Order: sequence, then C-alpha cells, then structure tokens
Amino acid sequence: MIVDCAHYKDGKRQHDHPLEPEEAARLAKEGGAFVWLGLYEPDAKEMTAVADAFDLPELAVEDARHAHQRPKLEDYEDNRFFVVLRPARYDDDREEVDFGEIHLFIGNGYVIAVRQGEASELAPARQRLEERPDLLEMGPAAAVWAILDKVVDDYRPVVEGIETDIEEVEDDIFARRGDSTQRIYFLKREVIEFHRAVAPLLGPLEQLERGAFPQINPRLQSFFRDVADHARRADETVMSQRELLTSVLEANLALLSVRQNEVVRAISAWAAIIAVPTFLASVYGMNFEYMPELDARAGYPIAVAVMAACVIVLHRFFKRIEWL
Amino acid sequence: MIVDCAHYKDGKRQHDHPLEPEEAARLAKEGGAFVWLGLYEPDAKEMTAVADAFDLPELAVEDARHAHQRPKLEDYEDNRFFVVLRPARYDDDREEVDFGEIHLFIGNGYVIAVRQGEASELAPARQRLEERPDLLEMGPAAAVWAILDKVVDDYRPVVEGIETDIEEVEDDIFARRGDSTQRIYFLKREVIEFHRAVAPLLGPLEQLERGAFPQINPRLQSFFRDVADHARRADETVMSQRELLTSVLEANLALLSVRQNEVVRAISAWAAIIAVPTFLASVYGMNFEYMPELDARAGYPIAVAVMAACVIVLHRFFKRIEWL
Amino acid sequence: MIVDCAHYKDGKRQHDHPLEPEEAARLAKEGGAFVWLGLYEPDAKEMTAVADAFDLPELAVEDARHAHQRPKLEDYEDNRFFVVLRPARYDDDREEVDFGEIHLFIGNGYVIAVRQGEASELAPARQRLEERPDLLEMGPAAAVWAILDKVVDDYRPVVEGIETDIEEVEDDIFARRGDSTQRIYFLKREVIEFHRAVAPLLGPLEQLERGAFPQINPRLQSFFRDVADHARRADETVMSQRELLTSVLEANLALLSVRQNEVVRAISAWAAIIAVPTFLASVYGMNFEYMPELDARAGYPIAVAVMAACVIVLHRFFKRIEWL
Amino acid sequence: MIVDCAHYKDGKRQHDHPLEPEEAARLAKEGGAFVWLGLYEPDAKEMTAVADAFDLPELAVEDARHAHQRPKLEDYEDNRFFVVLRPARYDDDREEVDFGEIHLFIGNGYVIAVRQGEASELAPARQRLEERPDLLEMGPAAAVWAILDKVVDDYRPVVEGIETDIEEVEDDIFARRGDSTQRIYFLKREVIEFHRAVAPLLGPLEQLERGAFPQINPRLQSFFRDVADHARRADETVMSQRELLTSVLEANLALLSVRQNEVVRAISAWAAIIAVPTFLASVYGMNFEYMPELDARAGYPIAVAVMAACVIVLHRFFKRIEWL
Amino acid sequence: MIVDCAHYKDGKRQHDHPLEPEEAARLAKEGGAFVWLGLYEPDAKEMTAVADAFDLPELAVEDARHAHQRPKLEDYEDNRFFVVLRPARYDDDREEVDFGEIHLFIGNGYVIAVRQGEASELAPARQRLEERPDLLEMGPAAAVWAILDKVVDDYRPVVEGIETDIEEVEDDIFARRGDSTQRIYFLKREVIEFHRAVAPLLGPLEQLERGAFPQINPRLQSFFRDVADHARRADETVMSQRELLTSVLEANLALLSVRQNEVVRAISAWAAIIAVPTFLASVYGMNFEYMPELDARAGYPIAVAVMAACVIVLHRFFKRIEWL
Repeated sequence: MIVDCAHYKDGKRQHDHPLEPEEAARLAKEGGAFVWLGLYEPDAKEMTAVADAFDLPELAVEDARHAHQRPKLEDYEDNRFFVVLRPARYDDDREEVDFGEIHLFIGNGYVIAVRQGEASELAPARQRLEERPDLLEMGPAAAVWAILDKVVDDYRPVVEGIETDIEEVEDDIFARRGDSTQRIYFLKREVIEFHRAVAPLLGPLEQLERGAFPQINPRLQSFFRDVADHARRADETVMSQRELLTSVLEANLALLSVRQNEVVRAISAWAAIIAVPTFLASVYGMNFEYMPELDARAGYPIAVAVMAACVIVLHRFFKRIEWL
Repeated sequence: MIVDCAHYKDGKRQHDHPLEPEEAARLAKEGGAFVWLGLYEPDAKEMTAVADAFDLPELAVEDARHAHQRPKLEDYEDNRFFVVLRPARYDDDREEVDFGEIHLFIGNGYVIAVRQGEASELAPARQRLEERPDLLEMGPAAAVWAILDKVVDDYRPVVEGIETDIEEVEDDIFARRGDSTQRIYFLKREVIEFHRAVAPLLGPLEQLERGAFPQINPRLQSFFRDVADHARRADETVMSQRELLTSVLEANLALLSVRQNEVVRAISAWAAIIAVPTFLASVYGMNFEYMPELDARAGYPIAVAVMAACVIVLHRFFKRIEWL
Repeated sequence: MIVDCAHYKDGKRQHDHPLEPEEAARLAKEGGAFVWLGLYEPDAKEMTAVADAFDLPELAVEDARHAHQRPKLEDYEDNRFFVVLRPARYDDDREEVDFGEIHLFIGNGYVIAVRQGEASELAPARQRLEERPDLLEMGPAAAVWAILDKVVDDYRPVVEGIETDIEEVEDDIFARRGDSTQRIYFLKREVIEFHRAVAPLLGPLEQLERGAFPQINPRLQSFFRDVADHARRADETVMSQRELLTSVLEANLALLSVRQNEVVRAISAWAAIIAVPTFLASVYGMNFEYMPELDARAGYPIAVAVMAACVIVLHRFFKRIEWL
Repeated sequence: MIVDCAHYKDGKRQHDHPLEPEEAARLAKEGGAFVWLGLYEPDAKEMTAVADAFDLPELAVEDARHAHQRPKLEDYEDNRFFVVLRPARYDDDREEVDFGEIHLFIGNGYVIAVRQGEASELAPARQRLEERPDLLEMGPAAAVWAILDKVVDDYRPVVEGIETDIEEVEDDIFARRGDSTQRIYFLKREVIEFHRAVAPLLGPLEQLERGAFPQINPRLQSFFRDVADHARRADETVMSQRELLTSVLEANLALLSVRQNEVVRAISAWAAIIAVPTFLASVYGMNFEYMPELDARAGYPIAVAVMAACVIVLHRFFKRIEWL
Repeated sequence: MIVDCAHYKDGKRQHDHPLEPEEAARLAKEGGAFVWLGLYEPDAKEMTAVADAFDLPELAVEDARHAHQRPKLEDYEDNRFFVVLRPARYDDDREEVDFGEIHLFIGNGYVIAVRQGEASELAPARQRLEERPDLLEMGPAAAVWAILDKVVDDYRPVVEGIETDIEEVEDDIFARRGDSTQRIYFLKREVIEFHRAVAPLLGPLEQLERGAFPQINPRLQSFFRDVADHARRADETVMSQRELLTSVLEANLALLSVRQNEVVRAISAWAAIIAVPTFLASVYGMNFEYMPELDARAGYPIAVAVMAACVIVLHRFFKRIEWL
C-alpha cells in the first residue's frame, strides 16, 4: 500500500496528494530535488512496480520481501543504499516489545521507505521534516536522518517501559509478593531481543556519522552523530538492564531460599509446640498401677494447665528467636 | 562417489550426463568456462584421482580426507582456494543438529565440492544456479556463491527449530510440567555446537565480501555480502538463544525452589491438620481418675465433633494463607 | 539561573561580580582572554539567550535541554566542542549514588557550564583554578580541565563509599546477621549505574589526552592525562566491585544453604529427642493383660527416669555430632 | 640427556649415530644444511655446553632452565628464535591432562629441542620429517614445523578424551547415578588448564602463518597455516567444553533440587500413610465411658480393617499424584 | 627516608655510602653515568627537596604523594618518565595479598624509586644489578629493568600461594570438611585485587618491550620482554584462578545440596524407624473390649518383639537404599 509519495524541491513539498510511483521515478531523475515514497506492507505486485520504476538493487528488493532482516546499511553501485531498521514499541500490558521493520532504498533523488508491522509509523518523521525547509533542501540524506531519528527516538519509551517493569519486579521480590520468576525471565527475553534489534544498528550509524554518504552536508553529519549517540545510549541502558535482570534472578533465588528457611522454622516451631503436650498426654496415658497423679482430684486440670503452659512458653520462646 | 560433474560455458551446461574427472580437468584448463564436480564421501582412490587430475593443494586434500575441520577459507598459489563448510540440519524429533561437511576446491576453471554426511545436499544449489545463466557466466565464483548460499540458507530452519523448542521448554517450565532440565541442557549443547559451526565461517565470508577472490565480478560481491549477512544473522540469533537458555536454566532452578516451598507448606499443613486431633485423642486417652468429660454420655461424640471441627478450621485456615 | 560569569585575562579574573551573558559573549570574541559562564538548571528562556549570544551549536543546545545524556565529547566546526559529564555523589544513608549532569559548551574564548542536579557543584573547581594564574593563562582548555578534574576527583569518595558498604555486607553475611540479599542487590545496581556514568567518559578523556583540542598547551595535556588516569582507576575499581558483588551474592546463597542445613539438623535432633520418650509412653499405654512392669510399684518412676535418660543421651549425642 | 643429534643436508640425514653438540655446532655454521639436536631434561652442565657451542640467547637459556613458561615465540638478533611449547597428554584413568614443555632454539643452521616431562615425545616428528626429503631441504623451519605439527596433533586425543568424559558425566547426572559434582569440577579444572596451554600458542602460530621467519619457503608457510588451524580448532573445542561444563554444573544443581523435591514428597507420603492409622488408634485409645464401638465384638477387627483401608487408599492416592 | 643513593659510572658504584640528594642531582647532570636514589615513605619535606633537586614533573610528584595509584607508565617532556608499580606479597596465614606501591621517576642520568608499604623491598634488585656491570653500563633503563624484574618475580610466590590455598579448599570441600564458603570468597577477593594490580601493568610493559624508552639498548629490550612475559604469565594464571574459584563456589553449592539431601534422608529414615513401633503401641493402646492379643500371656513380649523386628527390618532397608 502506498502511504504517501511526495516530491520535494527547494525545501518544499510540491504536491499535496501522493504521486504515482512512475511519476515519482521520473521526477527523481531530475536534479536538485528528491521524492520520498512511503509503502506499508506492499504486495508483490506493488513492490515489483516500484523496484522496476526506480531500478532498485535486486538483492535488496528480495531482502525487503522476506522481512526478518538484521539492521544494516548496504551500499550499491551508483550511490544507491539499502538500509534495514527495526523500530520497536513497548506494549506495557503484555510486557512485550513489538518490533516492526523498515527497509529504506536510497538513491540519487529518491528515498523509498517500505514498512512492515505496526510498530513502524513514519508519518511524524515526514511531517517534522516538512516543517524544516533548511533540512529538506539537503536532499535524500535529510529524509534518511528524519527516519532514523524517529526510529531511534522511539527506542527511548521502550527502554523506559522496561526500566519501570524492572523496578516493579524489584518491589515485588523484595516485598515478597508472589513468585516473579516468570516475569523476570520474560523481561530478560525482551531485553535480549531488543539488544539484538539495536546493537547491529550501531555499526551503520557510526558509518553514517563518519560520512558513509559521500555527498553529505557536514551540518547533517552532526545530526547523524546525534542519532548514533541516542542509539548508543539506548543500547548501553539495555545492556545494563540485562545485567540487572540477571542479578534480580539471582537475588530472587536467594530470597526463595530465605523464605524456605523461614517456612521450615515456623513449621518446626509449631510442630514442637504440639509435640510437647502430646508427649505429656502420652505419659498420663500409661497404664502403670501406681501413678499417684492419676488418682489426685486435681490431676486432670493440672495436667491440662501444664500442657497449656508448655504451649505458651514454647510459643514465646520461638517468637523471641524469631522462628515465628 | 561422483554425484555430478558438468561443464558450464557461456552460462549454459554443456552436457546432461556427468563428465569423467579427467575429461573435466582437461576442459577446466580451457578459458572462458568452468567445470563443477560434485563428490559424495569419495573413497581414497577417487579422491586421489581427482586431486591428481586437477593438481589440488596437498594439505587441503589431506584435510578433506580427515573431515572434522573447522570452517575456513584458505588461498593457495595460482588463485587456488580451499573452503571448508559445515552445513547443518535440525532433527526435531531427537532435538539434535546434524552436521555435514563440505570441502570446496576452487581454481581457474573448476569448482570441486566434496560432501561428507547427509546434511550436505547440494543438488538444489546447482539446479538453482543452472537456471540463472547471467550468474553462471561469472565462472567458478558463482558456483561458490550458490553453494555458500545453500549452506547458509539451510541454517535458518535449524535456528527456527531451536527457537520453537526453546518456546516449548518455556511453556513447560512455567506451566510446571515435569522436569525440563535435561532438555534445556541438551538444547544448550546443540546451540553451542551450532555456534561453533557458524562463527568461524563469518571471517571467511567477510573476506569474500571484501573481495578475497581477486577477479570477482562486483555484482557477485554483493551476493556474497548477502550470504555473509544471513550467516551473521544466524549467528546472532544463536548467541541470544544461548543466553536465553542460560536464563531458562536459572529460572528453572528458581521455579524448583518455589515448587519445593509449596510442597513443604502443603505437607506441613496436612501434618498440622492431623496432629491437632491426634493430640486431642491423646488427651482423652489419659488415665486420670477424675476426668468429668469421660463419664459424660455425649463425651465421645462431642470429642469426635471437636476433632472434626479442628480439621475443618485448620483446613480453611491453610487454604486462606494459600499453603493448600 | 546564572551562577557566575567571569572574564579571565592574563591569568586573572577581571571583575568580581558576575557578567551578563551578552557582555560576556562580546568579551569572548576579543582575543587573548576567555569567559567562564556557569548556569544551574537554566529555564528555556535563559538557555536560548545564552545560545544566541554565543552562537552555540543547535543540536548540543537541544541535548542540554533534555538532560539524561551519556558522557561524550563532540566537536563542531570552528573549534567548538560540546562535552557531557555525569558527576556523582554517594549518599551513604540511602546507599545510593546521586548523579548530576554537566554540559560544557566550549569555543574560542568561552566555556559555558550548564549544571543539572545537586551532585554537580563546580564552585570549588573555579576557585581552585583562579588560584593558579599559570593555568588560567592557557585559556578555555584550563577551565575544561578544572571541571573534569573536579568531576573525576568526586568519583573517588563514591567508589570508597561503595567499598565500605561492600565490606559491611561481607561482615554481615559471614557473621550471619539477617538477610543481606536486598542490600547486595541494590549495591550492585548502584555499581552498574556508576559504571555507566564513568565508562563512556573514558573515550573522550583519552581523546583529550591524545590532544583532541588542537591548540592545547602540551603541559596541560599531561593534566588531562592525569584526569583520564583517575577516571580509569575509578572505573577499574567499580568493575571489580561489580564482580565482588556477584561473588557476594553467590556466597550468600551458599551460606543460606548451610544455614538451612543447620536448621534442619537442629529441628530433627529435637524431634528425635521428643519422639523416643513419646514412643516409650505409648508402649506403657498398651492394654496387655500381663505387663509385669505396670504392676511394679517403682514402674512409673523408673519409666519416667528412662525417658529422661533417653532425652539426655540423645541430647549429648546430637551435641557431639554438632547437630545442636 | 642428548636424545638425538643429526646433520641434515640436501634433504638427507648424514649420520646414523647422534653427533656431539660441539661437532653439530661446527656443522651448523656451514651453509646449505642444518643440525637438529634433541635434549631431554638436560642437567645444568649439558645445557651450558650446548648454549656455549651454539651461542644461544642468554635469557632464553635461563627460561629453558626454569621451565613452567607460557607458550611463546621470541625473536633475537641474527635470525635466532626461541619457542616455548606445552605438549599435552590425556591420562584417562586419572582424568588429568599431563603437560610437558618443549623449548626450541632456532638459528641459522640449527634447531635445538629441549624437552621437559614425559608428555613431550618428539621422535615420531623427526622420523616423519626424515621420510620427506622435499621438506627437509627447506632447512630448520621444516624441523620447527614437524615439531609444532606433532605437538598440536597430540592435542586432538586430549580434546577427545575430555569430550568422552563429559559425555560420561552427562549420562551419569541425567541417569541420576551418584554425585558427579567433584568429577565435573576437576574436568573443568583440566579444561581451564588446557586452554591456558593452547591459547597463548595461537598468537605465535599466527605470526608464523603470516611469515615471522623471514627466509621461509612459501610452501612451508601453508604448512604452518595448517598447524595454526588445528590449534585454533583444539582451542575452540576446549572453549565450548568449558562452557558445556559450566552448564553441566548448573544442570546438576537443578537435578539435585528435583531429586530433593522427590525425596521430600516420598517421605511426606509415607508419613501421611502412617499418621492416619496412628490417629485412628489414638481415637480408640480414648477413655470415654460410652464408646459403643469399643464394646462391639467386631470392633477391633473392623478398626484394624479401617486402618488398613486408609493405608491402601493413601498409598494409591500418592502413587497417582506421583509422590511415590 | 632515604634508603640508598648511589652514583654508577662505567658499570661500577662510585661510593659505598649513600649520597645526599642534592649531590646526586648534580652528578646526574654529568653525562655517561647515572644515580639511583631510593626513598621509603618519604615525608613531604624530603619529597619536595628531591623533586626540586631533580626537577621532577609536578603531577607525577603529586601522584606519588597520594599513593593508591594504578600501575602506569607516563612520559613527560625531556625524556622523563613516571612509572607506578604495585608490588605484592602473600601472607599465607591471613590468606591475604599485601600490596605496596613503588613510584619511579626516571630522567637523563637518574632513577628515583619511592616505595610505599612493606611489600616493596628493592634492595635485592639493586644488589643484583651491581653484580652485573655489563647491564649497569646501560644507564637508568637497566635500573628500571632491575626494579621491574624484582617486582614481577615477586608475583610468582603470590600466585603460587593462592594456588596452594585453592588446592586446600578443593580438598576441604570434596572431603566435606566444614563450610569453606567464606574462605573461597576471600580467596576470590584477593585474586580480583591481584589481577587489578597486575593487569594495568601489562600495557606499560608491552610499551617498554616495543621500545618506549627512545635510547634503549636493544639487548636490554629483550630483558624487558622477559619481564613482560612473566607478568603476562602471572596475570593469565590469576585469571584462571579466578575462574576456578567461581567453579569452586558453584561446586560447593552443589555439594551443600547433596549433603542436605543426605541429611533429609537420614532423618526421614530414623523418623520411619520410630513411627512404625509407635503406631503398633497405639494399636494395642486401643480400648476395644475384645482384643484377643491383649489377654494372651505372651501378648506383651510378642508385641515388643514385633516392634523390635520392625526397627531392625526398617534399619536394614534404609541401609540398603543408602539413606542411612
């Protein structure tokens, strides 16, 4: 599905309505301007039409068809580039990170963004860029920056969502509320997956930072550095979250052990509290001929009183040594 | 055993039937064409015949004889190369990865593929290449690419098979079905082994990507980059699976601890439920002369009722604190 | 809020009172001197005024607005630099590290320090530098050094505070005082966070050490090396603290296991001590017609004595095998 | 002790009997040939004599005297080299790796091999080389290759021996035969030690592969590459064995936990099975005046039958929930 | 405190008695000779006097004052160097590594060694060097080598002391003697600390090996390589000790679990052994009218015999299944 297709010249959008790909391809070949074509989960026919119109690199098109690529930046002859991005969105209810996929085809005079999955909204990036004619004038690289900036900025709420969940888990385990093992495990799974989406992006971003696009404006280059820096920050945070979660899992295990100790103690205390009077009862259940207590009138009440006293004394004792 | 041996010229296979190695070696020396000879677990005699006909490097031939090599790319004088690959296939029933071994001897005008083990089928690679005359024209390098592409593409189902098994294990441990320790351990073993097959391949693939073959077609080079990228993706996935499995093992340990806590609590609750009425029975088993309850007509039924009441109250209590 | 703004010339402060930013910007453009402007959590208006007056790089200003940046050193055209620092302060009561943030804008003739958070006091750095006219004469780089030196020197008490807490935790767990799991975990969390504040600083510091500032005085360069060295030391210490805390957590788990073993033994010993006399009592509670002991006058006292003897012997036995 | 000392010229051994060191040193100085002197645990006098005759580097000789060096390759002026190797042999009974030590002094026209420990047999290497005049002609480098090849080839049975033991341990722990903790630990110890012997060798081998010997024959260089490749393979295998053993230790811990769970359940089931009839017996041991069952003729047999029924029902119940 | 101060010329010590620093500084400025000044924990005044006399670099002097530096090598203008070393000594009784600190100031014609802490004896290094005029002639670098060699050689007994303690701990835990958790933990602490003293030294030593001192004698360079090699060996050993100790801690945990299993089994066996006869006694304590056994003359002895038989059978049974 074609989401939007615009022709930018002298820092301004030329048409309000989306262009047809063929028209866009023709305009892309004119100098001093560029077209930005956005597609959302295109079917094979649409993709082929676009690939033919813009003469996109064969392997890149095939990659874009299959999805599930790792983030990368590939250059082809004639200043053409293929970029794969993995945008992310945190679903706080399911405590899961949803990943989308964006494939960018960049060439002289055009940027084509093919989006997969919901977590890959790009409209805000386009809108934001259209408000900055000074950047728009810099050509396709500006669009690439706008998209990268959007994707990397969107990592921040993911990282923060995970952070919040980690803090909740910490509260839970140290307040001893239920068993958090499963939750910790799945948070760690998300963190590992997220790292896998961000880390391979750092290499390409550093390439851009150092100037992988040959005819890039030096001012724009510092914009790419800014994006790379934010991605590094996201990755570093996620790495320490991974380490934290490992520690949480270990702390959890230790706390389970502590709790088991406490349970065993409490149980044993109660067992002792009931075993002692049971023993006393057994004693007076013995059938000896001559047991003077048995004949005493006050024998029974006294025995019961002694049992009660034992229970009270033991209970206090176990309270004091904190087994109860 | 010679599986197939074909002579390719101008992007087309010249004969339908397999050539003899000697004939192939002769044709290999002619310019503008190449032969692709496929052998499956050749015996010493066959191997020697081929090595002599094509003048293969001595050490490489010896390596091919012994199998169990690590993936590598070695260059010899006169533009000759020796490549070792470890194709893999996932046996989902046994949850084991089967590894084969492929040795490629590459020289001016020839590619010789020696396969070991079942997990090393190459016929589809040859078939696919024969359908692309534009690639076939590029000479031996195209055959190397076709083989590498097949081997690396076959890693994907392995990685996905392991992924599925990990998810099954996760379901099992969090649903507390049986003990998954052994399964987790052997999955991790497979993952470690698989990483060992893929990781050493990344270096050679990057060499190819950067142009280790001197007279390689630049278009083909981006095909090698594509293969390298898929191998990197397989390896990264496997690395995070390894980390996941470590976490699964830890989570499993924590869950075992949780389960033990629960068992100990349930047992203790039942012990308490039976200990209290037993104690009451002991009390009324005492032989005191004056125990008014004993003489009461309703004494026995009341005692039994009190015991039952204790059992019910304790049972409810333990239900409420979730020990039962 | 403008904290201080001074004009330094020939190694001496020119005015006692703080300058206005506009005045400072004018003076900065004169040669042979520099201004050092300190701001504390400036509001948007103040920040814009300063950015306009000094023509600060757009992206850097935006970063400074958002805070929560990673430590970094960025160079912009015209010898302008942007440095982000994360000063730290250890709050021993809460056992937490408080982080502040300092953004430095450096250009020809000016250093602007924007501070965020309490843990970012810079007045002592300025004071110390003003006492060293020989350094002040070296221009903005000297101010940068003074600030870096202050920030990195302040890491030392943090590291030492954590060290002390680790030693306390060690004492606690080996003396078996309470459960230290939570404390160990949160110490580890602080250590991970602190590493994240210091580690990214090492790269920029090494850049400075090797001479990132083009017109730097070689003598000052060895001052930067000194700072880099202290930062490396802080980071190395923190890394080994992290490893220690992992070991503490493991040792803690082992000790919990040891303690559980001891508790189980003690409980079992007491259970045995009470089970044996209870059994004896049961025996004499049997209703056999012919039990000679029952009729003996001394039967009861002897039975009680035997029970007492059992208790004493068992108690001694369990003491000897160290179960009690 | 001088084991053998031969003079090789034009690819052939010149004498059958071992030469005296002095004679060998004289021959070494002639061009177009080399001597290979093998010593086994020489005493100080022998070593000094050889060092003087061949003018060996002082520090290298001192190192050779002290043994317990790490594998390394050092070059001295005048094309002299000093190589330390750590050959290994697996003692399957003790499950220990025995390490020897070989010091090679290489110079123009001579190779001196000083062996320490039993696990350093070199005779097969010499024999194998003497059968290849084409290699012998290449001078001292060929002897160095022959020795390296022997040492590295001997790593393979070590690695395989450890592999077999790991598989045995896996069988043991998953079949729950005894406690394998100690065996796992000592296997890991061996693996760590073995890695320490192999890993430092990789650097020097790669130096040789890239041509550290200046006047080396390019054909021989591919022989060194082959050795390096085998060493890398041994090291990679050992690294994954180390990781496997860590996982085995963790799996072992989980299985111990599982087993404890099972034991606790079985014990508790039996406790319940006996507690219920005991309770019933206590009930009928009560001394109430009016307990109609007590007077019934069939009372006793019925009571016993009820107890038996309880035991059977409980036993079945615990069988069904798999606690027994 | 000035320990010794000597003037070396033409490989010989010129005076027996220690020189005054000022005299030494004057002699240092003469060519073809050097002075070696040794200070032990100098007070501020002494240090200032020496710093002034030799014109030592300001920052280095300040570092030397504060101690607790990381090992490093810094070069200053005019061929001046500042080296920090952390000598170590193993106190086997306390199982602790004592660290000292040595600061070396090196310049044209002088070496000044400032020692802190007891574990920093340098007299043997000086003595050993004075016995080698051939090395003494090489100037200050020879003194630096002698000191480095002494410090690094002293690491060996530390490493060996730790090795011995690890073996003792292994014996203890596998022979199940007491709880070694605390000892293992503190050994690991020492190992981490020791690594922190040695590892940062490797960089500077490799710089020296590659020729950081510009006018160094090539023969001396191979002496520095020897020292670097010993330091690398110490560090590698310590790294694998660290890994071993981690494994020991894990094995310890597994053994604790095994031991707990055993204790629980033994306890349960004894509980069963006493529960069965207690149950029998309860049965015969029932008050049924018609219990034929009760009236039998042999009833009581038979009942006791049956109880004894139960005990014996159960005991044998538990012995056989190895619970006792």
